[in-house]
Amino acid sequence: MASASSNRSERVLAAVPTEADQDVYRALAANAAKGVGVVTARQGRWDVAVTITDHLSISYDPPTMLVSLYALSRIAEAVTQADRWALSLLPDSLRPTADWLGEQGSPLVGLLGQVPHFRRDADGPALIDGALAWFELRTTAVHEAATHVLVVGEVVAMGSAAEPGAEPLVRFRSEYR
Amino acid sequence: MASASSNRSERVLAAVPTEADQDVYRALAANAAKGVGVVTARQGRWDVAVTITDHLSISYDPPTMLVSLYALSRIAEAVTQADRWALSLLPDSLRPTADWLGEQGSPLVGLLGQVPHFRRDADGPALIDGALAWFELRTTAVHEAATHVLVVGEVVAMGSAAEPGAEPLVRFRSEYR
Repeated sequence: MASASSNRSERVLAAVPTEADQDVYRALAANAAKGVGVVTARQGRWDVAVTITDHLSISYDPPTMLVSLYALSRIAEAVTQADRWALSLLPDSLRPTADWLGEQGSPLVGLLGQVPHFRRDADGPALIDGALAWFELRTTAVHEAATHVLVVGEVVAMGSAAEPGAEPLVRFRSEYR
Repeated sequence: MASASSNRSERVLAAVPTEADQDVYRALAANAAKGVGVVTARQGRWDVAVTITDHLSISYDPPTMLVSLYALSRIAEAVTQADRWALSLLPDSLRPTADWLGEQGSPLVGLLGQVPHFRRDADGPALIDGALAWFELRTTAVHEAATHVLVVGEVVAMGSAAEPGAEPLVRFRSEYR
C-alpha cells in the first residue's frame, strides 16, 4: 500500500559523510530501543566492565552472541585477549550500575567495588548479580567494522541471577526507560 | 562487591550443545529487550520484507549498521544480492505490520499490499511509513556466523516517517511491549 505522509524527513549522506550527517545519524539511530547489558572480561588481575547496548543473539545452534565494541577501548582489548568474557543483561533496578559502568574513564581499581557480582570460578569474568540473564562466552571470530570490532562468541555457560518479576532496563533516545 | 543470592541458576553447555541447552539459551536470550524493525530489499520485481529484532548501529563514522539474518532465508538472499537494502524502526502502532511480516512463509505476491510504505526512487527498497527512523544501506561486508549471516552496511540515506509522539515497538521475552 503506497502512502503519502507529511511527517517524513530525508537526508542523503555525502560520499564522505560530514559531521552534520553523523549528528543526524546519531539522532535517528537513537530511535532503536535497546536492552542494556554489561560486558566483562579479566585483564591480568583487573576486571574490565562496560555498559553496552550493542549486543545480539545470533544463533541457537550453537548458542552464539555478538557484541560491538569501540576498537580503541580497553574493553575491546580485554575481551579480544581473554579466553572468556561475559554479557549480563540488566534489570531496571540496576540503573545505577549501568550509569557507573557507562561513564568514560571509569577507574580500573575498585571498578566493581560497589557492584554486586559473582564468578563461576576465581579466574572467570565477573557476572552481575541481579542480571535477567548472564552468558559466559568464548570468542570464535572478531570482525573489524568502521570504528568498532564485532566480537562473536559461543556460549560456554549461562544462567539467571534476577529477582522474581524483574523488568529489563531499556535505552531509547539516549535515555533509560 | 562480591555477593550471594538465592535466585541464581547456572547451566554449563555440553561441548556440542544439546537440544535442551538450546532451549534454555532461547529462554535466557529472550531477556534482551529489543526494538523491532523491518528489513526490506528488492529481488527482481518483488519486495522481500521481514520483521527482525537483531540489528544494531555499529559506528557513526561513517554511519554503519548491522543486521543478523538466518543464512538460508529469502531475506538473506535478497539483502546480500541487492545493491541497496533498508531498515525501518517500527513504532508501537505498527504492531500489525510486525506480526504480518514476522510470519513464516509470508506470500511474495502482495506482501506489502496492506503495509503503508514509500520509496526514494522506483528501484529502491520499500521504506515503512510511520517508521521512527529508516535507513537505506549499501552492504560493505558479510560475515558468516553459525546459522546466520551478519550483514554490515553503510548508510546511504536516512530519515524519519513517524507521527509526533510515536513510541517504539519493543520485544521482550517473546512478547511485544
